[in-house]
Amino acid sequence: MSSKLTEDAKGVFVIAVTPFTPSGDIDFESCDRMVDFYLEVGATGLTVLGMMGEAPKLTIEESRTVVERILARVDGRVPVVVGVSAPGFAQIKALTDMVMELGAAGVMIAPPSSLKTDDAIVNYYVQVAELIGDVPFVLQDFPLVTNVQMSPNVIARIVNNVPTCVCLKHEDWPGLEKISYLRAEGNLDRRISILCGNGGLFLTEEMGRDADGAMTGFAYPEMMTRVVEEFNKGNADYARDLFDAYLPLARYEQQPGLGLAIRKYVMAKRGIIASDALRKPGPKLSAAAKQEIDLLIERQEKALAKLS
Amino acid sequence: MSSKLTEDAKGVFVIAVTPFTPSGDIDFESCDRMVDFYLEVGATGLTVLGMMGEAPKLTIEESRTVVERILARVDGRVPVVVGVSAPGFAQIKALTDMVMELGAAGVMIAPPSSLKTDDAIVNYYVQVAELIGDVPFVLQDFPLVTNVQMSPNVIARIVNNVPTCVCLKHEDWPGLEKISYLRAEGNLDRRISILCGNGGLFLTEEMGRDADGAMTGFAYPEMMTRVVEEFNKGNADYARDLFDAYLPLARYEQQPGLGLAIRKYVMAKRGIIASDALRKPGPKLSAAAKQEIDLLIERQEKALAKLS
Amino acid sequence: MSSKLTEDAKGVFVIAVTPFTPSGDIDFESCDRMVDFYLEVGATGLTVLGMMGEAPKLTIEESRTVVERILARVDGRVPVVVGVSAPGFAQIKALTDMVMELGAAGVMIAPPSSLKTDDAIVNYYVQVAELIGDVPFVLQDFPLVTNVQMSPNVIARIVNNVPTCVCLKHEDWPGLEKISYLRAEGNLDRRISILCGNGGLFLTEEMGRDADGAMTGFAYPEMMTRVVEEFNKGNADYARDLFDAYLPLARYEQQPGLGLAIRKYVMAKRGIIASDALRKPGPKLSAAAKQEIDLLIERQEKALAKLS
Amino acid sequence: MSSKLTEDAKGVFVIAVTPFTPSGDIDFESCDRMVDFYLEVGATGLTVLGMMGEAPKLTIEESRTVVERILARVDGRVPVVVGVSAPGFAQIKALTDMVMELGAAGVMIAPPSSLKTDDAIVNYYVQVAELIGDVPFVLQDFPLVTNVQMSPNVIARIVNNVPTCVCLKHEDWPGLEKISYLRAEGNLDRRISILCGNGGLFLTEEMGRDADGAMTGFAYPEMMTRVVEEFNKGNADYARDLFDAYLPLARYEQQPGLGLAIRKYVMAKRGIIASDALRKPGPKLSAAAKQEIDLLIERQEKALAKLS
Repeated sequence: MSSKLTEDAKGVFVIAVTPFTPSGDIDFESCDRMVDFYLEVGATGLTVLGMMGEAPKLTIEESRTVVERILARVDGRVPVVVGVSAPGFAQIKALTDMVMELGAAGVMIAPPSSLKTDDAIVNYYVQVAELIGDVPFVLQDFPLVTNVQMSPNVIARIVNNVPTCVCLKHEDWPGLEKISYLRAEGNLDRRISILCGNGGLFLTEEMGRDADGAMTGFAYPEMMTRVVEEFNKGNADYARDLFDAYLPLARYEQQPGLGLAIRKYVMAKRGIIASDALRKPGPKLSAAAKQEIDLLIERQEKALAKLS
Repeated sequence: MSSKLTEDAKGVFVIAVTPFTPSGDIDFESCDRMVDFYLEVGATGLTVLGMMGEAPKLTIEESRTVVERILARVDGRVPVVVGVSAPGFAQIKALTDMVMELGAAGVMIAPPSSLKTDDAIVNYYVQVAELIGDVPFVLQDFPLVTNVQMSPNVIARIVNNVPTCVCLKHEDWPGLEKISYLRAEGNLDRRISILCGNGGLFLTEEMGRDADGAMTGFAYPEMMTRVVEEFNKGNADYARDLFDAYLPLARYEQQPGLGLAIRKYVMAKRGIIASDALRKPGPKLSAAAKQEIDLLIERQEKALAKLS
Repeated sequence: MSSKLTEDAKGVFVIAVTPFTPSGDIDFESCDRMVDFYLEVGATGLTVLGMMGEAPKLTIEESRTVVERILARVDGRVPVVVGVSAPGFAQIKALTDMVMELGAAGVMIAPPSSLKTDDAIVNYYVQVAELIGDVPFVLQDFPLVTNVQMSPNVIARIVNNVPTCVCLKHEDWPGLEKISYLRAEGNLDRRISILCGNGGLFLTEEMGRDADGAMTGFAYPEMMTRVVEEFNKGNADYARDLFDAYLPLARYEQQPGLGLAIRKYVMAKRGIIASDALRKPGPKLSAAAKQEIDLLIERQEKALAKLS
Repeated sequence: MSSKLTEDAKGVFVIAVTPFTPSGDIDFESCDRMVDFYLEVGATGLTVLGMMGEAPKLTIEESRTVVERILARVDGRVPVVVGVSAPGFAQIKALTDMVMELGAAGVMIAPPSSLKTDDAIVNYYVQVAELIGDVPFVLQDFPLVTNVQMSPNVIARIVNNVPTCVCLKHEDWPGLEKISYLRAEGNLDRRISILCGNGGLFLTEEMGRDADGAMTGFAYPEMMTRVVEEFNKGNADYARDLFDAYLPLARYEQQPGLGLAIRKYVMAKRGIIASDALRKPGPKLSAAAKQEIDLLIERQEKALAKLS
């Protein structure tokens, strides 16, 4: 069983997709293959049932089986974080208890869109932390989707008031100054883990601002693990070369509403999952989009070949 | 077992609250008393697990027990509609199957806030109707909360394309012209049931525009059942007198975010439910607010006394 | 020339409409008649170029002529506040300079919808106050329209940092607790004027919480001036009787997007303005709506007759 | 004097910034230098007073002088489009008349955020087109900022009903399928110009879907003019190489709220404008951000050197 998530979390926690068969059933074999793949390319953790895991489309029983299967396959090699955001505390509590018992390392909680002021946001997290007790959690800051805007100082208030908030999933856009604020002397009463999102689209600058890595998805997670690794080795310039080679596709994947379909298409093409199916309601890629992706992959391979 | 919901639904389908004990447990005895009360004052149907039923704060198991308890107490005397809105089709399907098997008369479905265009809204309901098969459903049109704006013509497209859409929970604000449009010759290919919301705050005008009644909550549901009844008897003017007597409190109850706390406070004061507790996260009434409500009730009683 | 707006503002500052001819020109004669009417029924101030004054539909030259005409007619009898909200500081500054030179008593400023955090809101008002120098201003708190949610403590921060913020146009919904917070010992470093909005729909409770009056519109502003007056005389119960008599129409007028058309229809019917025309883009009342209003007025007159 | 904008608009209409001095005055000399620069690098048109031109921060008199100055400098060499979006028709009409008289080729109109349904959007454009008579206009589709979501079929309805709508500023995200829809046989009754936005971040795919070019800003507009040119010559692969070399900076510039500050910083660094000042309210770049930009420019120069 993996140990609990702490402020020392670093590297890349890949946001796992949930593989489905074309008819919409959960594809557990692909689930296993995906876990193996993520760990092979250097993931230091996994995050499941996030927005990109199509969590809201699963029934509660399905959520349980997915978490169980992934935890079994991971088998304690890396910590697994589970998204438990829900409109009510009873649901959050029930889901948290379930996944922690199954062996999760911590949970991730996004703010409900009804939170409109600084105090409302801070109070929410104080209450939710009280509710889940000593379970460490990741604070998800993703205003583009949640419509909740957390100022840097609100994040500081949460961290300073809630010891179980050990990690920030940093996904504001723009968000670089937020990292600098949280890393500046005196704003936080302890150093927490900052793992960045947005498909890795600002990963080089984020590492330059002293983030600890990424917690996001991209069809080529090896881009993220290698960029973080090279940064940590002091090879920032080579890290940027790597990043630039993957950037055209990463940019293409970062299309709201379409991104997961693109990611699954590439993952299926790479043989990581058997089908690129999304559950309904969900978008479908056009033939033109698939051609664009195929071309981006082809060009990416050439760019990478030049690098090595 | 009650029969299925049809286009003939009329009268008042009261949106039931979910009674809790002060410690947050479901209070099943209050549940029974509440059902008895609603039926005594003339409810022609009940709607459970709506937004005002704190549905999102219940776990799936709790939702089941609440629906079971209410259906058992109703015992087929009136149709019971259950809210099944959820982000994903798997959840909607699972919840619908569960409640229909338990004996519900139909389900209610609000649009997810991600729907931003006419076509997206229509497609959503076409897909969701296909998903739930022959289960009749109530289309919930409540833009203040869902952020989804349905033009009259979008509602017409849904009704005309989806035979299982038998009722509109009309809760747009303003929304009177929408009723007139849907009742005008030629816009719908059949007459559906239109039951109005917003705490009954426009009920007299809505009845005047040929609505079939209300599907909403108010701490004095007898206002709504009597207004509808008097309108149907041709006593519109007396219906308006009744309405006006309750209006100061109805207006006070119609405060977003606070309304349910006000309603539960009054219901507890009236002895219908044992406690006015809401589940977290939820607001609390101040002492000043309670005094305001007490005064409104006192004045309401005087106004009603003058009427009879 | 009227003197400057101060923290002592009380009574009813009526939000003036801008009268147009059916062809869309400004109707200056109606403007004069309207001013006379407002003052006759007891307005203690006027607010022009607010959202309900169709300010955004006027060119800058038209705004000037409207302000000039109204100031000339008021002729210093009551203070006149002018709405100067705009996306950029240059526009706010230019408009403020213009209207203060013409003799306005102060300006009103709503927050731009881009302000998403407490700090952003406070900073905006600190900067805007610096910009307009010693001009006293009204802070407009109207989240339903601006999408900016100011917590009570944000308003306190603004008031405590910006001495020229002398008045709050209180228009949150719900907003009663906000008044209580601002009136509680220790939250503000001085007592400011609180004038309430929302068409007066909560005026009795607002007065009960120690508001100073109203700054809003309603086709029967005498309701508001009399309610405030009776409250100030200690006749709260009679004030509530008056309020209740007008409530059915006040409620009807409070329909977002339609309210101004309803108000102008009634004002034209009462002979205060010559035409109920709104400038494009704007809604039109249906025949059914006009009938509903006519009936509400008829019943209102009967209810008032019973009172006296 | 330049002729009117038509459906044949193609190439790159650069969205011009408005240069200010550090004290906030309009810097007319930089204005001239900027115009010269844009035309030298191949702009086929200019768009002024757009969102990126800080239009809402200018007074009406300032808007006039900026348009006059730019038109004088352009001197008919390319068409100039002017943004005239405003909340009311009177303002749109006044601004349109003014700029067309000064010699603009057409105007650009974004939808007000109050438009919530397909019909409301179409009606708005039908009315606005009637208002401005025979002036050709650009339909701006930028939901991230306007909050108005136009389905492809709404754009088709506008184009098919309004002959003066000659160009779409395509800025939805994602938006590629929208181009394909508008280019597919049978959806539009004539071919209009489609010029794309979003800082050029999807320009290669947009050209591949048969867009006519771009109407957006980027500190290196020569990237866009060259990409469009190479695509038109049939050198799509080389166009992509060019695009990829600029992509790291283009991505960095595409940060909502910060983008214009980044663009002005680079333009000042390149000597195109004298100062990178934005008018208040507006953001400032941190030292860290400037270093990141400097590094991106350095790497961009190396990548371009490898290409030639």
